[in-house]
Amino acid sequence: MSDQNVLTSQKVDFPRWYQDVLNKAQLSENGPVRGTMVIRPYAYAIWERMQAEVDVRIKATGAENAYFPLFIPMSYINREAEHVEGFSPELAVVTHAGGNELAEPLAVRPTSETVIGEYMSKWIQSYRDLPLLLNQWANVVRWELRPRAFLRTTEFLWQEGHTAHATEEDARDYAVCILHDVYRDFMQTVLSIPVIVGRKTRRERFAGAINSMTCEAVMGDGKALQMGTSHELGQNFSNVFDISFVDVAGEKQFAWTDSWGVSTRMIGGLIMAHGDDNGLRLPPAVAPVQVVIVLVKSDLTALSWASEFAARIAEAGVRVKLDDRVETPFGRRVVDWELKGVPVRVEVGPRDLDAGTVTIVRRDTREKASISSESAQAHVMDLLREVQTDMFVAASDALKSRVVDVPGLNEVAEAAQESIARVAWTSVGEEGENVLAARSLSVRCLQRPDGSTPESDDEPDLIAYVARAY
Amino acid sequence: MSDQNVLTSQKVDFPRWYQDVLNKAQLSENGPVRGTMVIRPYAYAIWERMQAEVDVRIKATGAENAYFPLFIPMSYINREAEHVEGFSPELAVVTHAGGNELAEPLAVRPTSETVIGEYMSKWIQSYRDLPLLLNQWANVVRWELRPRAFLRTTEFLWQEGHTAHATEEDARDYAVCILHDVYRDFMQTVLSIPVIVGRKTRRERFAGAINSMTCEAVMGDGKALQMGTSHELGQNFSNVFDISFVDVAGEKQFAWTDSWGVSTRMIGGLIMAHGDDNGLRLPPAVAPVQVVIVLVKSDLTALSWASEFAARIAEAGVRVKLDDRVETPFGRRVVDWELKGVPVRVEVGPRDLDAGTVTIVRRDTREKASISSESAQAHVMDLLREVQTDMFVAASDALKSRVVDVPGLNEVAEAAQESIARVAWTSVGEEGENVLAARSLSVRCLQRPDGSTPESDDEPDLIAYVARAY
Repeated sequence: MSDQNVLTSQKVDFPRWYQDVLNKAQLSENGPVRGTMVIRPYAYAIWERMQAEVDVRIKATGAENAYFPLFIPMSYINREAEHVEGFSPELAVVTHAGGNELAEPLAVRPTSETVIGEYMSKWIQSYRDLPLLLNQWANVVRWELRPRAFLRTTEFLWQEGHTAHATEEDARDYAVCILHDVYRDFMQTVLSIPVIVGRKTRRERFAGAINSMTCEAVMGDGKALQMGTSHELGQNFSNVFDISFVDVAGEKQFAWTDSWGVSTRMIGGLIMAHGDDNGLRLPPAVAPVQVVIVLVKSDLTALSWASEFAARIAEAGVRVKLDDRVETPFGRRVVDWELKGVPVRVEVGPRDLDAGTVTIVRRDTREKASISSESAQAHVMDLLREVQTDMFVAASDALKSRVVDVPGLNEVAEAAQESIARVAWTSVGEEGENVLAARSLSVRCLQRPDGSTPESDDEPDLIAYVARAY
Repeated sequence: MSDQNVLTSQKVDFPRWYQDVLNKAQLSENGPVRGTMVIRPYAYAIWERMQAEVDVRIKATGAENAYFPLFIPMSYINREAEHVEGFSPELAVVTHAGGNELAEPLAVRPTSETVIGEYMSKWIQSYRDLPLLLNQWANVVRWELRPRAFLRTTEFLWQEGHTAHATEEDARDYAVCILHDVYRDFMQTVLSIPVIVGRKTRRERFAGAINSMTCEAVMGDGKALQMGTSHELGQNFSNVFDISFVDVAGEKQFAWTDSWGVSTRMIGGLIMAHGDDNGLRLPPAVAPVQVVIVLVKSDLTALSWASEFAARIAEAGVRVKLDDRVETPFGRRVVDWELKGVPVRVEVGPRDLDAGTVTIVRRDTREKASISSESAQAHVMDLLREVQTDMFVAASDALKSRVVDVPGLNEVAEAAQESIARVAWTSVGEEGENVLAARSLSVRCLQRPDGSTPESDDEPDLIAYVARAY
């Protein structure tokens, strides 16, 4: 199916490399409607692992999954002023259904704060009903002018959490907990992607939020990617949807709400953070196939050893595939498995096996080792753990080398062409953001000098991370 | 929250009983748009278990999950004549997006044969690419005139499988495999719901299919519910979407395709097949909470025993909840757990505990037993297995008692008021189906005398199951 050097080199043309990987590794195709995409089985299998790992972390915070309708009456969207301003240019609208024109047009949900707010209002009466912690896994639609598979598509899959709290403090703590204990932990330990965690500037906030916090990752070309966000909505939605409760003292109070989400965009991030000129490099925790056993050529002893070995490591919980398609040249199959990013490859040839060895190759470093066939299982199990952490270490080094301190706004533009520029927020400010925007740069987030997340854009000594971004 | 006798009795008004259960057990609410619904956390947790159990069975057949776009160009839907005729009255249509009127209106998918057919056509070239076995978990929209939560909603969640095969025989075998090994097995072993499996008559077929097969269950009021279907589409879609391949002999052939699905409708089936006047009765395999430990009153020794017991059975893999809300009257909490259908309840009171016992109650039969606290864990584990199979046996007996043999069409109408009438298909026929339809009855499916599924409506000696249906 694939030949040597099937991919455009990252250095030559990163966006074309990305497209090549999507096609050749059979990850996605454009949908029939502009901006939509088909998620093919290999990419969907990655998404299923992502979902499972994020879901268990979400549930550990006490949130429960539910499902709210796809169609939202336009009147709901129109209730929160900033929200409607932010989303109305991106809405897809149903005007006809069941053969008739509808009395009220329906928005296809771009996000569900409004419809979930309506039900929170019904379900919350007393302080005893708080916090109310809901999440849903769903598709959403935002009409995109410059779509790109996984990164920016008209329809995408995500989880959107919506929670209501009795106090501002509780809402803030929970939003931070999602950002750190769910998103950052997932990205770092499962995706092996280090992230810069911080606060969005007013300009970059979610439409209707009082505070947006983000996990930003760096891609192979030095651009930043927003991988997940957690928003404090203050009392904006609770005022508009009357999400109120009677407190301990018997007084009516409005709840403080949060919303937070990660999406199939993370698949794009995974491709671009780890991929190289040979294709995907997948951390074992999300790899649909963790170990591929490649039969070098037709040989009964080798086949029998390989089958038995596959069964043994499958039994030990490894997702393993046996490639015995010996009618296809060995080299071509190897290229294909590298393209697909399978973390560990075991090559089984009759000559090696006679000598009591097999060749084990790790995808991340492409390091090869001749290992005695008897200790192959232990070696593979160790390697899966090692690759997972080594990929995180390598990505952390890459991130570090991409972050450059610059003295002021004047130096940012050049530094941010291939790096993430760290600069004093005071030397940028809201006016500086306009200057940056004109050069396709943006402040990805603000941090305190100690790396923690500020509670306001106006705290002293804040540091801004400036970059080009997807 | 709930009082004694909160529910309308099934005998008095079954539809109102159903509505009462949905409200009181906090399963669903109507969405803001007519016909849509909100799936609340307790029902969604049931759906998650259903998904997991169906998904593992689907994957065992070799199918892979993928995701295709929500929006389908109207021109796609219009290509297959019967398909468009069947679905166009139910379509929701997007006419505006991104602030502009669209050149071509978009259907919100009612089902995805057309869009998936388009991609199958690209992905299938040779007989080596077959069978192509795809599935997706997704939301779909069909504008419903008489909506009812879970059973018939404008938007619902489902899995839709779409497969392409080299021969008619392979397509038929696979469609049957899904019907029996995935759907029937899941319904009987996980949901504890026995089903009648058979062939739909021409009148009841899926729009565009050459054969529709179904799993039909009987509800508490004697009505039938179609729980899942598996369709052979013949070459109808492969002709229209050019799903073709080069066979071993080098000749171009059109593929044979299937489609098959189960949906959130099964939640409605679960409620109505097992529920009683006290509420839900959930089989342990899908119960979000399998065992509830109810503290009778405030007592430190009892609380300590209950907490320790909860931890112990949780460790053993049981989904357990400790109800220590002693400020709420014990009786009211018991009513609530019965309403929620929790399969096993352990009541822990200080007096019993002093005597070395706890009270264990199974929800299906409401049988109570005083059990020594030392053997409580073993008893609970046994009971979970027992309840699962006993519920299936009880539901099978109920089904048997509901099926009545009648001599001919004249006798069907009366028999089918509260039963499922079995009658010779020759005495009904397509004309008879019109007569039945006028009385709100339908042929649910056809079977051979030995219970197997016929390959044509015209086989001799077929038996028709006639019933009112949801």
